[in-house]
Amino acid sequence: MDLEHIRLKAIGVVKNDAAEVPRHWTVSDLRGQLVLDAEYEGGLKDIRPGMRIVVIFLFHRSREYTPDHLRHKPPHHDQVKGIFSTCSPVRPNPIGMSVLTVESVDGSVLAVSGIDMLDGTPVLDIKPYIAAT
Amino acid sequence: MDLEHIRLKAIGVVKNDAAEVPRHWTVSDLRGQLVLDAEYEGGLKDIRPGMRIVVIFLFHRSREYTPDHLRHKPPHHDQVKGIFSTCSPVRPNPIGMSVLTVESVDGSVLAVSGIDMLDGTPVLDIKPYIAAT
Repeated sequence: MDLEHIRLKAIGVVKNDAAEVPRHWTVSDLRGQLVLDAEYEGGLKDIRPGMRIVVIFLFHRSREYTPDHLRHKPPHHDQVKGIFSTCSPVRPNPIGMSVLTVESVDGSVLAVSGIDMLDGTPVLDIKPYIAAT
Repeated sequence: MDLEHIRLKAIGVVKNDAAEVPRHWTVSDLRGQLVLDAEYEGGLKDIRPGMRIVVIFLFHRSREYTPDHLRHKPPHHDQVKGIFSTCSPVRPNPIGMSVLTVESVDGSVLAVSGIDMLDGTPVLDIKPYIAAT
């Protein structure tokens, strides 16, 4: 398959007004919105306040990946880790994933908490959160 | 940001020899491999047998998304659901996510279980699995 032909499209955008965004959703109580394009409103059926959702997004402000990013020392760790064991935004593909909590749903706008994405981050997908057992 | 300029690249491929793949990783004990390109081997540091990992991949064989896919009846449900509450492969962006278990690591090849992806599926990213609390 020719991945060159895969075109991603933003289905919406993350909004928050924080001066600084927490480093990870596990330590964030930052609130904001996922403002989806109106055409996707129908896909939000069954999303309810209190639910956890998986949000797939683009690291749109990250530096370009180069092979020296394969090993990385996260700011909150004292050891170098393999990139696939970290949530570093500088990755072979600049795709991020966060688990957020739905606070409310209004048309094509989700109010959410647990945000660790920058204001303006393009949203690519929302999936149900399912814990591994 | 111009998403047209985002180029995804496969970092590897899913291998399995199942005639039929389970519908979801939560109900799968299918084993196979994630065969990464050799250049990414260094990024697998700290991945150990027994770990759960999040695998981001491309739904490379899915039909093209059209707006009538916003509501969808999953085969194992009797109700129509919003696409963002399902794991349907026909989505605005054809990106999938599964939580697999690492069985062993050999160079740039991970033996894994819990596979619900077709043989040949392009792998885009591997992330640590972190349960929401």
